[in-house]
Amino acid sequence: MNPITKLINLQTLASGDILQLKTYHFKGKTGTKKVYIQSNLHGGEIVGNAVIYELIKFFSQLNEDTLHGEIFLVPMCNPTAVNQRNLFFSTGRFSPYDGLNWNRIFWDYSHEKVNINKFVKDNLNLTKEEIQQNFLNQILIKFNNKLKSINQNRGISFSEHYRNILHSLSLDANYIIDLHSSSVKAIDYIYCFDSRQKNADYFLFDYGILMNKYDGNAFDEAFLNPWLILEKKFIQQGRNITFDVESWTLELGSGMTVNQASVNKGIKGIINYLSAKKMLNLDVIIPQKTTQFVNKNNLKHYYAPQGGIIRHRLSEGTKVTYEDVLYQLLSFPKNGDLPIIMEIKSVDEGIIYDVSINDTVNQGEYILGIFPHV
Amino acid sequence: MNPITKLINLQTLASGDILQLKTYHFKGKTGTKKVYIQSNLHGGEIVGNAVIYELIKFFSQLNEDTLHGEIFLVPMCNPTAVNQRNLFFSTGRFSPYDGLNWNRIFWDYSHEKVNINKFVKDNLNLTKEEIQQNFLNQILIKFNNKLKSINQNRGISFSEHYRNILHSLSLDANYIIDLHSSSVKAIDYIYCFDSRQKNADYFLFDYGILMNKYDGNAFDEAFLNPWLILEKKFIQQGRNITFDVESWTLELGSGMTVNQASVNKGIKGIINYLSAKKMLNLDVIIPQKTTQFVNKNNLKHYYAPQGGIIRHRLSEGTKVTYEDVLYQLLSFPKNGDLPIIMEIKSVDEGIIYDVSINDTVNQGEYILGIFPHV
Amino acid sequence: MNPITKLINLQTLASGDILQLKTYHFKGKTGTKKVYIQSNLHGGEIVGNAVIYELIKFFSQLNEDTLHGEIFLVPMCNPTAVNQRNLFFSTGRFSPYDGLNWNRIFWDYSHEKVNINKFVKDNLNLTKEEIQQNFLNQILIKFNNKLKSINQNRGISFSEHYRNILHSLSLDANYIIDLHSSSVKAIDYIYCFDSRQKNADYFLFDYGILMNKYDGNAFDEAFLNPWLILEKKFIQQGRNITFDVESWTLELGSGMTVNQASVNKGIKGIINYLSAKKMLNLDVIIPQKTTQFVNKNNLKHYYAPQGGIIRHRLSEGTKVTYEDVLYQLLSFPKNGDLPIIMEIKSVDEGIIYDVSINDTVNQGEYILGIFPHV
Amino acid sequence: MNPITKLINLQTLASGDILQLKTYHFKGKTGTKKVYIQSNLHGGEIVGNAVIYELIKFFSQLNEDTLHGEIFLVPMCNPTAVNQRNLFFSTGRFSPYDGLNWNRIFWDYSHEKVNINKFVKDNLNLTKEEIQQNFLNQILIKFNNKLKSINQNRGISFSEHYRNILHSLSLDANYIIDLHSSSVKAIDYIYCFDSRQKNADYFLFDYGILMNKYDGNAFDEAFLNPWLILEKKFIQQGRNITFDVESWTLELGSGMTVNQASVNKGIKGIINYLSAKKMLNLDVIIPQKTTQFVNKNNLKHYYAPQGGIIRHRLSEGTKVTYEDVLYQLLSFPKNGDLPIIMEIKSVDEGIIYDVSINDTVNQGEYILGIFPHV
Repeated sequence: MNPITKLINLQTLASGDILQLKTYHFKGKTGTKKVYIQSNLHGGEIVGNAVIYELIKFFSQLNEDTLHGEIFLVPMCNPTAVNQRNLFFSTGRFSPYDGLNWNRIFWDYSHEKVNINKFVKDNLNLTKEEIQQNFLNQILIKFNNKLKSINQNRGISFSEHYRNILHSLSLDANYIIDLHSSSVKAIDYIYCFDSRQKNADYFLFDYGILMNKYDGNAFDEAFLNPWLILEKKFIQQGRNITFDVESWTLELGSGMTVNQASVNKGIKGIINYLSAKKMLNLDVIIPQKTTQFVNKNNLKHYYAPQGGIIRHRLSEGTKVTYEDVLYQLLSFPKNGDLPIIMEIKSVDEGIIYDVSINDTVNQGEYILGIFPHV
Repeated sequence: MNPITKLINLQTLASGDILQLKTYHFKGKTGTKKVYIQSNLHGGEIVGNAVIYELIKFFSQLNEDTLHGEIFLVPMCNPTAVNQRNLFFSTGRFSPYDGLNWNRIFWDYSHEKVNINKFVKDNLNLTKEEIQQNFLNQILIKFNNKLKSINQNRGISFSEHYRNILHSLSLDANYIIDLHSSSVKAIDYIYCFDSRQKNADYFLFDYGILMNKYDGNAFDEAFLNPWLILEKKFIQQGRNITFDVESWTLELGSGMTVNQASVNKGIKGIINYLSAKKMLNLDVIIPQKTTQFVNKNNLKHYYAPQGGIIRHRLSEGTKVTYEDVLYQLLSFPKNGDLPIIMEIKSVDEGIIYDVSINDTVNQGEYILGIFPHV
Repeated sequence: MNPITKLINLQTLASGDILQLKTYHFKGKTGTKKVYIQSNLHGGEIVGNAVIYELIKFFSQLNEDTLHGEIFLVPMCNPTAVNQRNLFFSTGRFSPYDGLNWNRIFWDYSHEKVNINKFVKDNLNLTKEEIQQNFLNQILIKFNNKLKSINQNRGISFSEHYRNILHSLSLDANYIIDLHSSSVKAIDYIYCFDSRQKNADYFLFDYGILMNKYDGNAFDEAFLNPWLILEKKFIQQGRNITFDVESWTLELGSGMTVNQASVNKGIKGIINYLSAKKMLNLDVIIPQKTTQFVNKNNLKHYYAPQGGIIRHRLSEGTKVTYEDVLYQLLSFPKNGDLPIIMEIKSVDEGIIYDVSINDTVNQGEYILGIFPHV
Repeated sequence: MNPITKLINLQTLASGDILQLKTYHFKGKTGTKKVYIQSNLHGGEIVGNAVIYELIKFFSQLNEDTLHGEIFLVPMCNPTAVNQRNLFFSTGRFSPYDGLNWNRIFWDYSHEKVNINKFVKDNLNLTKEEIQQNFLNQILIKFNNKLKSINQNRGISFSEHYRNILHSLSLDANYIIDLHSSSVKAIDYIYCFDSRQKNADYFLFDYGILMNKYDGNAFDEAFLNPWLILEKKFIQQGRNITFDVESWTLELGSGMTVNQASVNKGIKGIINYLSAKKMLNLDVIIPQKTTQFVNKNNLKHYYAPQGGIIRHRLSEGTKVTYEDVLYQLLSFPKNGDLPIIMEIKSVDEGIIYDVSINDTVNQGEYILGIFPHV
């Protein structure tokens, strides 16, 4: 089964050249569900491209009977960010035009003036499938109206244009999988939303961050949030529904590098998840242990107490306990003192999940993060 | 009357050097009110430094009887941003460490878990002055508790450290005046909050933007928002109070440049405002006409429909009407076509209040903004 | 007469998108001379694109009898630089990959191990035209051998790849015209090489810089330098030849902006020059006054003696004499002193030809330049 | 023995803050030779700071009898570069003001109009020590005259100001040791000048690059070059002198990180070198094997043939032979083709000495370098 590929014009540059998105589309003979997978939304987070490359190879070897529903893949999904450099560094984490984090620009239907209570009342007695279809239609109508209301003379900012293109490819999906990595150095983990924890296990990750607070228009949040709100409204009306709509962000290791173990973990997890969702006709690996979740608001971050050079920092993945020396800070004070080394000890116990990529720091720069109590 | 100056350590750099803030403090013989004035929060917005320079000269010539209360001035209030360069450009609009807009990092008391309803109930029968003092105390206690809760080993991000220092200088002020300019090219205007429009007139600006929606942790918003919420709660309880607390952002022309007319407008407006507030014992200029306000959510923005070179763009301050050609866009398409010039016409009428600084654009870059119907 | 356009692949980006050059080629019915005109080699120097746009329109209206020889035009000749942004600034003056100034990367035949003395000896008795053809052939052979010697596995740096493409379009031209502007703010002027001053006059510029020292692999230098060396060698052999080979850089005003007067000056000058060269069958405007030249090593540059804010700087084009106040510097010292304003006076007399674009400076940043004694 | 420390004002910033250099000076009871050691000239090359920290500790434990001569240490020798960030990356390889590589700005006495032939003639019959003193005096006089000729109104660029400060600390040294690392990822090696190879061995490095061509005003070159020229002139006069003047650049591993093995190698090598030079009264380790040198013009560099993601790149330190697969390049072409993986094979045999830090590449970005035939 070969994918259908499609090129979409994304941005005409000052020079007249055009940046494009390329989508790879596999469609099974049967099934109606859709999974949408993208990678490299942040410029330096490249691991997911290797995952999508392997997935394209893998799906190409399947025949159309093995796939139920359709798979959309968008590698290199942010050319503007991917190609950006400062020296040899990938600095495409923020838009060069408005400074926005590329993953905080997305459109959340629930932020529109919409009467969800009325929708619940109108749909209370329909089947889950009917409700899901009706709500999706409302989202798509609102989205299309937004597109239509764009004034061609005023135009729109690139951030808004860009998000509209990604939404138009993905809003009607059942499952969204956004392949990130740390922009610095990190272990593998998964972002999960409340009420979807059980399905996270099929990705076979050891650790996850539970999005217990809305962090602001990330791709995964903007997609799922309206559905989570709808579910809560139905619960208030006494009806407990979980729609067949999910949203995942996989964090596959470190930035600017492609670790093979992280690639393998991504491929294996996605195939197993799609099998569990019965989109692939393959054996499902039953997770031996469940993913350990840390609430987002409970992550512990360490910042440089002053400028200097970091020495002997513990690496990502290290288990720490109270009073462990996390790192040393060598500084050369601009007074009469000799240079000194300061030891910074942990006030947390848990796993170091990410560490910064640069061992020189000004005061207040990021040093490392800890998943506490795992 | 000479100011008392004070140096505050702000950031120890990797090299061991220390960036400092310098405050200039004038204190009258009488009076208890405090005005806090800062400039250059964004790296390229330097006009306010010239205003503060002139204000320091002006206040220095006054004697202590003419001043009631105290004036705090902090020019160059963001050394990290002020000193930052990419080539010869001032690119310090966003923190180099976390990408945050330097004017979206501030702390808003009302975002804490605080029971304002209880405060209103407890204070309902006190005088306005007592209530103001009590509420300020609550803000300061909460702020100081936040400072105390900082774990020394974990440290805090530079953005948070920085905002804490500015808050510690300004939270107890009656009036906050934040001197910005456009980062691009713009006319002079003022930001004003709902219910404070009348006092805006004393700044003698032609145009203002009314902050009719909370835009997110800007310095002026974070300061005033709790008080505005408190006022609304009191109105719900039947008591109509306007506290003697105000917050202003002056936009003084263009970035990376110091236009003398903008400097003069800033000086004149601030002195007149302080006179109207009876902090200065000077004649008040009664505004001949009131400031014309545009609601923030009603600003009109134009973005490049594709990449190219901007030609014959109308400048800031131009009055436009429907169908006026705002600018031309020269592009060199990467196909067989000859280069073309496209005309972009206005779909708004009003005043062009800002225009971008760079006549090359990629698709989606900012071109200009319009205050409609003024 | 319509130009023949051609697209050349320049750079495949990480995302898979391809940046291209587009050439516009007009060919007369008669004539063998070739002029090569490019613009926007530095990312922010965009004026030349508007000049080339007008030239394409102008040449298109001519018929093939009016043009003798051929005209190659390459607007937007450096897409990598043109599209680069940091915030809304065009920062493409240096390659993001190796930090090299885009106009210091070019290949100069005379830097190869070539025996020019032998060439002179072998060609001493040939006609000027024969010698010119023979020398050009040697240059082209050497250049093509360099291309052939590139090892496909090792590849080459983007700077080298890029220069090779521009050379392959232009090495066989008689006249090269490189359209720059200041990267900051400047008056119009022209760069000229020794022995070619008389022809400079046809461009109708008031001022010029005479390249009396080799500055290092700029596009104009790298092209003309071997010919100038050859001419000197012939003079040493008693034969005084000036080959029909010239190289010009036009500096058309300021960066990131398109001043119409600079555009007009560029168009008028180029058309007049080509007419004087008899490539265009048009009346030649005889220059009323000759271009005033300043030797490159005699330019006067002013740098900030310390950090601060520039006030009341004289603008580009101002005539200054000794002791004129060039600018003021407002600084806020980080000690007990009050802010101060320092006046910086001219120690030169002449014309201010460029001034920096940013009125905040750290110590040692550029302030302005003077053409002395003009 | 405690060092004497000294603070030198380097740059007053726009904000009024001042960046300083701090020097650490150890002086023995006897001896007249001077070694000058600096680190972190490029912003991201931080390893040398850790070396200097350890050297300060080590020398502090010595008593004044053990040291002959004096040791100057300047860690963090470029605060402007050290503190610079784009995101969390150290991008201080080039000056933000003029784009110059911080290690290509230095002053070379031999580039001045000086008559070295006359000096040789005048000094031909003096002792080596007398000649060395006389030549040093000439250099210092010329340098001080340059400083005196700076016009205070014009000022000088920061690059020139900065180099003057480093020269004023180091021009009179016998030995200069400049502690760099790769800006990307690299093995340890040493830069050496022709005629000084034997002394390189005392640093105990496996590999070295022999500076067989002048590369342009690097710190080590600018210091030693006049002496090397002088030596050649004396040889032409039949006198074979090697002055007791040397210049070394140590490349200690990778950028933005501090590898302990590289630190140890730096410390051990420097102490052994100073012992061999009899500045330290310690046992000299006799090198078991000599440093293997590669001529600078013989290094082999690999660049990306097109954009994409690097997979399975061999790491720094790997020994390669012809046809070894150096890396794979995964690309997603923007046409109908499926993504592909290309294998790039070595056309060299030797040691991979550095590899780039970023696994995404645009066409022409650096991939890796090879020391051939070692």
